[in-house]
Amino acid sequence: MNTEIKFETKKAGENIVVIEFVLAREISPEELRNINPPDPIENKFADKLVILSGRGPIWLYGFLIHFYHPVKAIAVFDPRLDGAVVVESHSKEYEVGQVVKI
Amino acid sequence: MNTEIKFETKKAGENIVVIEFVLAREISPEELRNINPPDPIENKFADKLVILSGRGPIWLYGFLIHFYHPVKAIAVFDPRLDGAVVVESHSKEYEVGQVVKI
Repeated sequence: MNTEIKFETKKAGENIVVIEFVLAREISPEELRNINPPDPIENKFADKLVILSGRGPIWLYGFLIHFYHPVKAIAVFDPRLDGAVVVESHSKEYEVGQVVKI
Repeated sequence: MNTEIKFETKKAGENIVVIEFVLAREISPEELRNINPPDPIENKFADKLVILSGRGPIWLYGFLIHFYHPVKAIAVFDPRLDGAVVVESHSKEYEVGQVVKI
């Protein structure tokens, strides 16, 4: 169960939550079965924009994007843009392709 | 509408479809609104495993993973693993974290 991946949840304004992950070492695919990202319902941020941030493989992001599917909108932080790109939105508040600065 | 992104659909066995994208130049976030990936219903591969492959930003993958949400399962190709990692599955046939060789 110890997957050497740490998640940190940070509020960025009233309606934005940043989920930042840090890998202590390289993650292997089967570890996706045991990771435990902060639950959006339990932690009451399902009604917010979730920004994913961290250095890791694209498939880890893929897993997280599916995991956070129930939230209002999901964005992926891109350091080159100094902001997060909305990739999925269930709300008129956020549009796919929008860059959210944090 | 011309976003300089090309998608190629390849069959890999009976139950696997590889969606490979090629960017002619760097994509900008707002272009996510105009890209047109192969539709899984129209192209009759909603009942298959979809493997995403290509060099591009993580948020493009984020968009595609949401786009292909209706299919049986989604995997992300990782050249370092010489295979694709299942990130989302709605079938017992594929398990999250499984590496599918193609």
